[in-house]
Amino acid sequence: MHFAVLGTGTVGRAVAGRLDELGHDVTIGTRDPRATLARTEADGMGNPPYAEWAAQHTGIRLASFAGAAGQADAVVNATSGEASLEVLALAGAANLKERVLIDIANPLDFSRGIPPTLFVKDTDSLAEQIQRAFPNARVVKTLNTLTAALMVRPDALPEGSSVFVSGDDADAKGVVSTLLKEFGHTDVIDLGDLSTARGTEMLLPVWLRLWGALGTPTFNFKIVR
Amino acid sequence: MHFAVLGTGTVGRAVAGRLDELGHDVTIGTRDPRATLARTEADGMGNPPYAEWAAQHTGIRLASFAGAAGQADAVVNATSGEASLEVLALAGAANLKERVLIDIANPLDFSRGIPPTLFVKDTDSLAEQIQRAFPNARVVKTLNTLTAALMVRPDALPEGSSVFVSGDDADAKGVVSTLLKEFGHTDVIDLGDLSTARGTEMLLPVWLRLWGALGTPTFNFKIVR
Repeated sequence: MHFAVLGTGTVGRAVAGRLDELGHDVTIGTRDPRATLARTEADGMGNPPYAEWAAQHTGIRLASFAGAAGQADAVVNATSGEASLEVLALAGAANLKERVLIDIANPLDFSRGIPPTLFVKDTDSLAEQIQRAFPNARVVKTLNTLTAALMVRPDALPEGSSVFVSGDDADAKGVVSTLLKEFGHTDVIDLGDLSTARGTEMLLPVWLRLWGALGTPTFNFKIVR
Repeated sequence: MHFAVLGTGTVGRAVAGRLDELGHDVTIGTRDPRATLARTEADGMGNPPYAEWAAQHTGIRLASFAGAAGQADAVVNATSGEASLEVLALAGAANLKERVLIDIANPLDFSRGIPPTLFVKDTDSLAEQIQRAFPNARVVKTLNTLTAALMVRPDALPEGSSVFVSGDDADAKGVVSTLLKEFGHTDVIDLGDLSTARGTEMLLPVWLRLWGALGTPTFNFKIVR
């Protein structure tokens, strides 16, 4: 499959790198490819400059958001939650039509400081906002409940754990579930329609406190039953 | 220890029954003990009438909220979230002073139908509301993230899982953690101060969707790390 991964940060690089490793075609989308390649400093999360990362991932192309989405079978939203709707608009509604749109973003609001709050919650979700803005896309919410490295390599943990999918399109959830299993996930729980993403997005507050309490983001929820 | 368990519903009965079984003194608090004992019909959750349950738990006393709290070393808030502040006021601020107040309630709002939303979230929590209303109580939030039967008998699951404690008083959290281990919990995670209860209370939305997806409330979160 040909994937467009929107976003060059920690999540975008982790997902794109793993997809490439698994033999998929990958184009990363960014606002301004020339500017992204020209950066020589670490990004705000401490990631090395994109060009440095790209030199180690020569099979992965870089394009504008629209250029990436235009060629893809599936689009991964790996942007920050606050930027997601704008970035997807730049990717272009026509380029998202009928596409599987894998939404990993979280609606984090850092304007009140740390820990962040959520700018949408409980009666709505970022995933539903995206679906309403792009009604012809097939949005599946997943992987927003664990750290980037574990999203794509859950076997780094000492035992199996759980991930969730939410979406209104059963076929799209099937495509995503298959991909999650390629990544190594052994327990993919289909929560139901896209409104169930309210639940997984509202996991972030306890995830953030667990990070603080455990002193590491290398953990995941397992649903024991 | 002498416990007051406020609430005669599913959670109150589960906790009181288990405490009694473990050899603790238990008084259940209710609004009107005579009315509670006089009921002959199942409650809204399908639990048998209290008198029927009490006949099988003869070591457990029933008293008014204030009568129960007045004799207790620790008080368990096993009421519905919407009733919690009123019930604790009836228990009496003087009776809560210096007491360990174990808050199991969730701020569920059923006014919009099913699934419920939360009437406080993200920038505040029910646990913090309770602490502000009763500043001399030593509030510990715990056990609000799993079904009543598993709160007190987590070994009913095929493997160990996790529970959380949040609170501003380290000694009170120690008392509660010891009690949780008596119940059978093997992984008690101290999330930090009481504001971390925002995280565990916001787990409820995904808990409710998991109940729907799995078709059973007999599951729990395990933090794999």
